[in-house]
Formats: sequence, structure tokens, C-alpha cells
Amino acid sequence: MQTMMKQQRASAAAGKQAQAPRVSPKVGRARSVIRAQAAPATAKVAAPTISRDLVDKCINAIRFLAIDAVNKSKSGHPGMPMGCAPMGYVLWNEVMKYSPKNPDFFNRDRFVLSAGHGSMFQYSMMHLTGYEDVPMEQIKSFRQWGSLTPGHPENFVTRGVEVTTGPLGQGICNAVGLAVAEAHMAARFNKPDVKPIVDHYTYCILGDGCMMEGISNEACSLAGHWGLGKLIALYDDNKISIDGHTDISFTEDVAKRYEALGWHVVHVINGNTDVDGLRSAIAQAKAVKDKPTLIKVSTLIGYGSPNKADSHDVHGAPLGAEETAATRKNLGWNYGEFEVPTDVYDVFRGAIQRGEAAEAEWAATTAAYKAKYPKEWAEFEALTSGKLPENWEASLPTFTPEDKQLATRQHSQTMLNVLAPVLPGLIGGSADLAPSNLTLMKISGDFQKGQYAERNLRFGVREHAMGAICNGVLLHKSGLIPYCATFYIFTDYMRNAMRMSALSESGVIYVMTHDSIGLGEDGPTHQPIEHLASFRAMPNMLMMRPAGGNETAGAYKVAIQNRKRPTTIALSRQNMPSLPNTSVEGTAKGGYIIHDTPGGAPEVILMGTGSELQLAHEAAVILEKEGKRVRVVSFPCWELYEEQSAEYKESVLPSNITARVSVEAATSFGWAKFIGLKGKHIGIDDFGASAPANILYEKFGITTAKIVEAAKGML
Amino acid sequence: MQTMMKQQRASAAAGKQAQAPRVSPKVGRARSVIRAQAAPATAKVAAPTISRDLVDKCINAIRFLAIDAVNKSKSGHPGMPMGCAPMGYVLWNEVMKYSPKNPDFFNRDRFVLSAGHGSMFQYSMMHLTGYEDVPMEQIKSFRQWGSLTPGHPENFVTRGVEVTTGPLGQGICNAVGLAVAEAHMAARFNKPDVKPIVDHYTYCILGDGCMMEGISNEACSLAGHWGLGKLIALYDDNKISIDGHTDISFTEDVAKRYEALGWHVVHVINGNTDVDGLRSAIAQAKAVKDKPTLIKVSTLIGYGSPNKADSHDVHGAPLGAEETAATRKNLGWNYGEFEVPTDVYDVFRGAIQRGEAAEAEWAATTAAYKAKYPKEWAEFEALTSGKLPENWEASLPTFTPEDKQLATRQHSQTMLNVLAPVLPGLIGGSADLAPSNLTLMKISGDFQKGQYAERNLRFGVREHAMGAICNGVLLHKSGLIPYCATFYIFTDYMRNAMRMSALSESGVIYVMTHDSIGLGEDGPTHQPIEHLASFRAMPNMLMMRPAGGNETAGAYKVAIQNRKRPTTIALSRQNMPSLPNTSVEGTAKGGYIIHDTPGGAPEVILMGTGSELQLAHEAAVILEKEGKRVRVVSFPCWELYEEQSAEYKESVLPSNITARVSVEAATSFGWAKFIGLKGKHIGIDDFGASAPANILYEKFGITTAKIVEAAKGML
Repeated sequence: MQTMMKQQRASAAAGKQAQAPRVSPKVGRARSVIRAQAAPATAKVAAPTISRDLVDKCINAIRFLAIDAVNKSKSGHPGMPMGCAPMGYVLWNEVMKYSPKNPDFFNRDRFVLSAGHGSMFQYSMMHLTGYEDVPMEQIKSFRQWGSLTPGHPENFVTRGVEVTTGPLGQGICNAVGLAVAEAHMAARFNKPDVKPIVDHYTYCILGDGCMMEGISNEACSLAGHWGLGKLIALYDDNKISIDGHTDISFTEDVAKRYEALGWHVVHVINGNTDVDGLRSAIAQAKAVKDKPTLIKVSTLIGYGSPNKADSHDVHGAPLGAEETAATRKNLGWNYGEFEVPTDVYDVFRGAIQRGEAAEAEWAATTAAYKAKYPKEWAEFEALTSGKLPENWEASLPTFTPEDKQLATRQHSQTMLNVLAPVLPGLIGGSADLAPSNLTLMKISGDFQKGQYAERNLRFGVREHAMGAICNGVLLHKSGLIPYCATFYIFTDYMRNAMRMSALSESGVIYVMTHDSIGLGEDGPTHQPIEHLASFRAMPNMLMMRPAGGNETAGAYKVAIQNRKRPTTIALSRQNMPSLPNTSVEGTAKGGYIIHDTPGGAPEVILMGTGSELQLAHEAAVILEKEGKRVRVVSFPCWELYEEQSAEYKESVLPSNITARVSVEAATSFGWAKFIGLKGKHIGIDDFGASAPANILYEKFGITTAKIVEAAKGML
Repeated sequence: MQTMMKQQRASAAAGKQAQAPRVSPKVGRARSVIRAQAAPATAKVAAPTISRDLVDKCINAIRFLAIDAVNKSKSGHPGMPMGCAPMGYVLWNEVMKYSPKNPDFFNRDRFVLSAGHGSMFQYSMMHLTGYEDVPMEQIKSFRQWGSLTPGHPENFVTRGVEVTTGPLGQGICNAVGLAVAEAHMAARFNKPDVKPIVDHYTYCILGDGCMMEGISNEACSLAGHWGLGKLIALYDDNKISIDGHTDISFTEDVAKRYEALGWHVVHVINGNTDVDGLRSAIAQAKAVKDKPTLIKVSTLIGYGSPNKADSHDVHGAPLGAEETAATRKNLGWNYGEFEVPTDVYDVFRGAIQRGEAAEAEWAATTAAYKAKYPKEWAEFEALTSGKLPENWEASLPTFTPEDKQLATRQHSQTMLNVLAPVLPGLIGGSADLAPSNLTLMKISGDFQKGQYAERNLRFGVREHAMGAICNGVLLHKSGLIPYCATFYIFTDYMRNAMRMSALSESGVIYVMTHDSIGLGEDGPTHQPIEHLASFRAMPNMLMMRPAGGNETAGAYKVAIQNRKRPTTIALSRQNMPSLPNTSVEGTAKGGYIIHDTPGGAPEVILMGTGSELQLAHEAAVILEKEGKRVRVVSFPCWELYEEQSAEYKESVLPSNITARVSVEAATSFGWAKFIGLKGKHIGIDDFGASAPANILYEKFGITTAKIVEAAKGML
């Protein structure tokens, strides 16, 4: 699995290196013009006032870049950029703080295009303002293999894109997470007597689709509860979705709903042309400091297209030559395909100089901070470096078989609490199951309005938003290590957010307790069966199911180390031993031998995970009493095992030993790749039931006796 | 898989038969008392007016049944039933139309306990009112193996439970679906000049957890849009969730949000004792006919418990002996464990007679209807019988290799449109992707406020609610066959609803288009990789991926036939041929041979699904030219294949042929069980990318050449 992935990433990287020149000659000129006007680097640089005609020209430039790119690629979504271009102009030219030549400038405002299908909007803005990853040839390569301008914004492809968006609703939740990270870092590090070193806004554009998705309501309810005043969401209220006009399915009063969620709401009635209205709305948003703001911006999708505006036709298909010509005429755009007038570049490339000035200002601010607060600055630098503290893993305890039997959720609680002091970036919580998931860090209070420096997050019963918010927290790139928790079954509610972690290289830690029928009486709606298989099948997701204390420590070690791969840790409700030879080191290999009968090669291999590893171990003892030679293999993480060398894997599962039994209180699906066509799986391929856990194991036949029977049947 | 499931169901059924007597002597007496008062069977029977003291006694009886059952089982949730008992009294004794001795009475009001953890609330009500599945011994077997009173309400276990609830938020969405079904059936069959034959309310109790879940906002936005006036939801506003008081994570204005969603909202300030307030609120709800109503009922969780009420302690754990005694004293409850006073039974068992009267009244109504509208009545009877019309499958077309190549989503459109006229129960739609999913039935208009008789549903971008609403539509048991659609990737947004279909035997049809990297430019956020594996691993879910027209017809045949198993059909965006020997009959076997080189047993087996089957077929042609003997197996449905006889499976995949190659534009995960440890899978174990589809297949190596190479490597 990893090999193919690495090849792909390598190929993307190669694609990156292959493009040259990064800046087109025209762009180069534009930049030099702006440079000539440069103010002293440390002063604040405001965008110069320009004529309304030139503003409109800038706005139309955004529109036509999108139109032309979608036409050229013969696929894409021109309607959103055409309607949102005025927002783009105001945000990028007048409002946002960012540095095109240094997309990673720490104190930048974050922007999220939640309506990710309108990616050409973001690429247009990035091109016009001079981001190096989006020169004109990348605009012309929109949606092509190896380009830096894929169909939806991907943070791992294009520098300057904060988060991967596309699945509707994820982006606004990521934006909430980015705002959480800002509020947290600001509360932890800013000091009243020096200028704040963490101080930026998070902007998000979302559309009707994002608004309809339940995930956005979850996250926005939390944002209102938390009072995230520096979150400003612009709602592209164009009343068109793929099925047509929203009046066929979406007639609620969105503004009133957001007020009910605790947001400040402003309405810009004509988002197509009312630039002053947008300016004013954003100013009002900034003035309200204790609530997030929703700016409802009523627009026409495909504004400017005489025959397709305000219709579904312009949403997700190229305008085509004829309608493009009509739109050029209608908007008075006398420029060729992909042509950007010099004066438009002159305006937008002012961002480069403003960005440099902002960076310089921040450098001065941090220098003053460092002088007065050297210890705090060192902490800030260490945290935001993204590097883990030296020797952090020494805090992880180890266990012996003689230690008290505990549930792995209890071991998880231990790990979180030994890690919390040594990993200052650890932040997280549960979707209203903290007493069951055991995920509170005892050294911290709750992150709440007015106490943003705390590290325990209370997500409420909002699993999907929880995952997406954690992605935002992580991708703020402050060195924060977010974890989140619920019952393992409820990964079903948050699966797309987890997939987005895996895709967007967001190393969130998913702490998932109550991992099998072992939870007992709550019954089949609460008992995972297919979930281990479903995550083992997901690319770039580390699915861990530790057995006992040492493997839980090992799982956390892996999870913390993997900052670009999410880890899901499945943990038991019920007790189990820490078996002999289970180890942190073995866990890191994904699969490893914990027992071999002395005196020759094994005849049969028993393998298991989590709470069932002890059954395999017990079965081995019984089989040995009958003179069999048995190997027991623990398989806490299939993905890590697959990444081991062929030699190692052959040493663990020698090809010539075909008598193999696996045990896991879960579906057999997937185990064939370790047990082969002749092996046997002791598990459960149906839904569970409501009864005490020990009864369920007995009734479903997940017992030592069944393992022994299966093994003997093969010998 | 099926074997174990069948065993389990059989065991549950056996448990059912074993309990005797169904009605305790006390219950029997209570019924006879009521019977003595019986009014003529066809007249409406109102609940008799009783003293306030007796009302309180009835309410406390509900509370103590829940307390005692949770204590006995040592697990469960007493707090919700204690707080909601007054609602239970008013609904079951004064408001709802139902027939305890015939839980399937068609015209009954539907009740859904969305806060499913409070299952003892529902079991208490069902016991007190005389449902045969809930005699006292079942109350005493709460949460035990084989009982009819599992930890969460399960429609497939307990007759009288409409839907399976437990995962928060699902129930309110099911309730929306039940109300949709009622509105639809009423609009289709009721006539202005005779009494309505379809005429009932849908009631739902939901709590703070359901309210926080995004899925509930999605469904309630739709319910408001649709103006479902006969949906009445009671919100148990107890302000306690597992993490503690809701002020730590849930401070929005719920009532205002529901107003924004288009609901009528009423508030009962003291739900613990204000029975008149509840009566009045329900009357107000019924008076508003064009909007659903939310009754916000402010309660104390665990009302009556002197030390635990209004706290998390009473949410999900037994009260224990001491606090139970204190609660008995506090509420003046001088009865023993599981003791129900005769006068309480006398009151509640009035439901039996009222139910019989309601049934008699409905029988008279339908008789009058039948006399005046014999044709419509015949249609109604045929539909609600749940039987499929004779010979319906004859409408499904077949295809030859010479037919034009089409995408399977286009074939799916054909199937839906040939089935729509012959299956009057077919109803469904898409989550705002109708033009892409191709799911509109051309013979019908849109189901909208004022036009509920139409059969195309417009769900908006609300996948999760869509699935759960379809479960409600199906479990209304009117013979409706709901289908719903989105891009296959967005099953990630609705996975728990799909799992609830599988668990609760709800044969919803999930029409999932754009089933692989073959969708092209939209990129990895839109390209399923692990999804086939993830659904193949899910119990009771039929995961179909048809190749060409014949298999799409076959997939629909299977899906329509399976009214107790959901089917997910993965369909392509891109064209493919209908290969020789692909067939409806083969599809029903799940896996079957479509090609064998003549002249002897095959040396190598190539297998594939969907759009990649043609690659396997092409590879076979090439290999045959080089003198190899090749078998090609199509695998549209793994679950159906697994259910075939061992002989059949050996005939398709003979054990002695170990040279096996599988091809599918998806993860290799799971294929080992068909290709073995030595086989090779041609697929993709990483995320996709943004580029035209043909480029992606080439770059990811999913090509005929790669199959040929893999096969030759084994020969």
C-alpha cells in the first residue's frame, strides 16, 4: 500500500520540480512595478485606493481566469468564482493578512474555501496575488495529472492551500478548528503588555451545499458556544445547487438559524457588485469580538453570463466558447484567454509587498516578546517548530503480566495523562463521552469562552464536526497534536472527516473505545463488527488495536510520531492482561511474535489483536499441553506490518506454515491475507446482540475452545 | 456470514416462543375490567377521565418499572424514563392511536424513541398498555441474551417497536421518514368524499444528544421544508448529557433554530408534573397542519431521585438500592420491585379496547372506501401487502455486447424508469445530485408540500438524513420501496444510516454513482478507494458492483427482491460494454464464469467487477492468443457468492488453480479470500488524483497490460 502511495507523492513532487518558470514574465513585471512603490518594510502597508473601474476590472479578472481554466480543462465549476469574485477582491486585496512568497507565514489570516468545487476561485486569487505554486501555466493545467491546481483544493499539493476541501461542509468545520487553534495559541502565549504574537482571523467561504450538511451545523453550534470572534464566514447565498433552485429542498431561514447558534449575522444584499457592502460587513464582523460572524452574501451564480447565470448550468460545467464570448461582451472584458491586464496584476501583486511588511512587523513583535518573555518565547518556538520534545517517549510506562488487568481504555487514559505534561501540543477531547472514553487530561481545564488556554475540548454529541475541527486544529501548524474520542462504532458518523485526515496528511489521533461486542448490553447499534476492516482498507490511516498496556503505550508512540498520518486506536471497555513479550517495539512493527513453543519450528500459528490476543495465548497453552508447537502473533497494526521487509514478514508468518487461525471479535473480512484460503477466523460476521459481554463471547463462539478446535482441525 | 445471522435470529425467535404466559394474571384481570366498560366496537373510545392522584400513580409506575429493570440488569439508563414519564402517560393513555394486541395495525400512530438509550421508557409503556412482546418477565430480562427487551429498541426483536434507535439522531430522521410515508400514502389514496384511510400522526421523543447531532438538523430542515404537519417531536430538554450539564457544550437556542427550520415550536416549562401543559401542547401541535411541531419539554433527568436527579449520575447507570429506596420514599411509591398497582394496569390496559375500537373504525372506513373506490382499494391492498407485483422483473431489459456502451449509472436510470411504472411503491431521490446520479423517475413529479403523492424526493445536500429518512419510509411498512442516491464516496457521510438499514432489516436501495477513480478530474476527495471493501465487510449489506447493462438489471432485481436487506449499487460515471455472457442470473449468484478458453481446464483465473471486468476480458483475449487457457469470473456481489453452495464455489474457483488475478479500481483489501496468498490484485491502495479518467487508469496501472503481466508471472 505504502509503496504505491510513495510513488504517487514522489510523482507529484517531481511534477512540482518540473514546472518552470514559476513566475511568468508578465508576473515578474507586475511584481517589479509594485516593488518600486515599496514602503519601509516594518510599516503597515495598506492597499492603495483605486478607481471603481479598476476594482471591477480586478473582479472580472478573477472571473475570467476561472472561466478560461474550466473551459480549457473541459471540466470544473465556473459559477461559484463568477459569483464570489467581489468577495475575492475585497478579501485578498483589502482585508486579509498573508504573504504570497511565504505561504507559511505563521501569523497569516487563514482562508478556507469550504465550497471546494469552486477551486478556480482560490487558484485565481493565488495566481493574481503571486503565490509561487500557481503561475499561469498551473492555471492552464487545471485538473490535469501532476498539476498543482487539482479539481478541489488539496493542502498537500498546493502551498498556500490550508486544508483539503471538496466534501461539502468539511471546510467550514476546518475553519472552526483553525479558529480554535488561533484562540488557544493566543490565550496561551500573548501577554497583555506586549503586542500579540498570535493574532489573525480565519475566513471561510461556504455555499448552500455546506449549509445543508449537518456537519456544518454541528461545528457552527460549537463555534457559537465557544464565541470564536475571529472566525468570519461568508455564505455565498446564490440559491442554486445541482438539482436546481434551492427552493426545491432548502427553504429554511439560514440567518435566523445562525443567530440561534449564537452567531453575529450580517447580510450583503447584492454580493455581485456591492463592494462597499462587503467592506462594511467585514468591518462589522471584526467589531463583534465575542461571536463568530456569518456574512450572508446574496449573489448570482455565474454572474455575468447572460444565458447561464442564476442557473444550475453554470455550476459544474464549462461555459463553452459561445457563452464565454457572450460573457466577455456582457462584462466588457476585452482581453484574450488567460490574459490578465497589467494594471490588474499591479493591484493584486501589492499583496507581496504587504505580506513582506506583515512578516517584518511580526518579526519586530516577536523580537520584543522574546526580549521580555524569553522562556515563553522558547516554548512558543519549540511548539510551533512541530518537532516533538526530546525523549518524550520516556514518559510511556511499561507493564508486566503480573500487573493488574485493565481495559485498554484505562491504559489510554494513563498514556494521555503521562503525555499531557511532556507534550505541550496535546489538545483534545470527546464527543460527550469523556467519562467513558477516559480522555480528560487531568492537568488541564476545559477550553471554553474566556478560557481558551485550556486543553480539554468538549465537543458535545457532534462526532463528524469533532473530526473536522481536529483537522483544522492540526493544520493550523502550531505544533498542536489534536486527539478526539467517541465509541468506536460512531466512527460511522465521522468517517469522511477521518478520511480527510488521512488524505490531507493530518495526524489526528482518534481514540475509539468500546471496540467490540465486549461492550455488552448496549447491543448491536453500539457494537463494532466491520469497523476494523473498514479502516484497515482506508489509505494512509493507521488502524491500531492494542492488546494490554505495552501495546497501548506502543500505539500512542506510533500515533504521536506520525504527524502526517492519522491513527485510530481501538480500545476495549473490558479488562485484559498485559501478556508476556508484548512490547512497544513489537507494536511499532505492526505484527510480531509474542510466543513460540520451544523446541523446533511451529506447526500452527495463532494470531489475534486487542482483547482476543489473550484467547490465542490461552489456546497456545492448551495446545502445547497436547504436544503441539504453537506460535502466537500479535497484530496491533496491519498497515505497519505491511511496511516491514519481506524477510521480516516471512520470519513472522513463514509461507510453509499454512495451519493458521486468527481471532478477533470482529468480521473475518480481510484476515484471508494472513491466514490464507485454508485458514480459519474465530470472530463474528453478523451483528452483535444485547447481553453481558461474557455471554456474548460464549454465544458467538469467540472462545479459547473454538481456537483450539480450529487449530486441531488443521493439524 | 448468513449462517451465523440466521442462527441468531432463530435463537431470538425461539426465545420468543419460550416465554409464557404472555399476559400475567394481574394483566388479565385488568383487561377484563376494562372490557366490561367496552363501548360499541366501531365508536371512538376516549380514555376515561381519572383523578390527578391516579394520573401521578400511572406516571410513577412508568418511572419505577424503568428504575427496577435497570437495577436488575445492572446496566441501562433510568434517567430519561424518569423525566419523560409524564409524556409517556399523556401519549399512550390520551393521545396516541394504537392497538397493543395488533402492533401492525396499519393506521396506527407511529412512535419513535430517538433517545433510544431510554429504551426502558418504551418497554414500560408497552408493558403497561399490554403489548404481548413485553410481559413482566421480559421487563425483568432487560438487556439479557435472547430477551425481547434489548439495551436499545430494535424493531427486528420487539413487535411494536417501529424502528431501531440507539445511535443518536437516527430516530428523529426515521420519524421524518415515517411522516413522509404517511403524507405520501394519504395523498395517493385518500379521497375527499370518504373518510381518510391513511390518517395518523408520527410522534418522536428526542433528547439533547439527538439535537446536537448534525443528522437531526438535516432531517428537520427537510421536514420544515416539506411542511409535515403530522409530525410531532417532543424534545426532552433536560440539559444533561454524559459529560455533564449541557452548558459545557450546547448553549444554542434550540427553539429559535427550529423556528428557522420552518417548525411550529411550543414550550412546556415543567415537563415533570405539568400534564395539562403537555395536553395543551399536543393540541396546539395538531392544530397547526402545515408545519411539523417541536414541543420543547423542559424536564429533570431522573426526576424523583432525591440525590441524583438533574445530574449525569442518573443518565446511564442503575440508581442502586439505596437511591432507589430514597426515590420510592420521595415519590411516595409504596410498591415492591416490579410491582404495578392494579388500578394503574386498569388505566393503561384501556389501550387494548381503544385499539380494538380504532381497528374496527378503520375497518368500517376502509369498507366504505372499498365500496366507492374498488380499484383504488385494490391498489392500496396490493401495495400495503408488501408483495411485489407479479412478473415485475419482466420489465428489466437485457443487453448484448453489440449494444452501445453506456455508463452503469445510465443503465441504472433505465432500470429505475422501467421499474417505476410496474412498482408503484418505488419512491426515492438524490442528495442534490439527480442530474449526475440519474435517479429521477420520469413518470413522476417532485414530492413537495401540497404534492405529496409524487414519488421523486429532493433531499438536498443531506446524505445522512437521506439514508435515515429512507429507513423510516420503508419501515412504515406501506410497501414503499425507497431508494436514495449520491456519489459513492459520500456514503462516508451516511454510513451509520446505511448500517441501520442493514441491522434493522430495512431493504433500502442505495444508488451510488461515480464509483471509482473513473470519475476523473474531481480528484481524491471524490474518488472511492476503500468503500467497496468497507461495505463488503458490513453484515447484512448487499454490495453490488455491476458490469454493464445485464448486471445492472441483475443488481436491481436483487435489490428489489431483498426487502429485508439493503443493497448498495456502485455505478460508474464512464462507459463500458455489456460483455458476452454477463447476465441477470449470474449476477444473482454474486460471482460467475463469463468466459473459459475452450479445450481444457483453465490455467489462470482472472476476476473483476464493474468497469474493470472489461479489462479482465481483454486480458483473457491477449493471453489466449499466446496459447494460455483463461477463465474470467465476474464478481458483482461477494455476499451472494458466499451464500452459494460449496460445490458451486469450487466450480467457479477450483482450489487447484492458484494462478489468480483480480482487477478492480479500488483497494486490494479483501481480495485475498478469492485470490489467495499467491494471487495478485490490480487496483489502487492509495488515494486517487485529479486528472482525466483514462490518464488515472494508466498512471495507477489499472490496465489490461498489467493484468496480462501479472497472469504471465504466475504461469
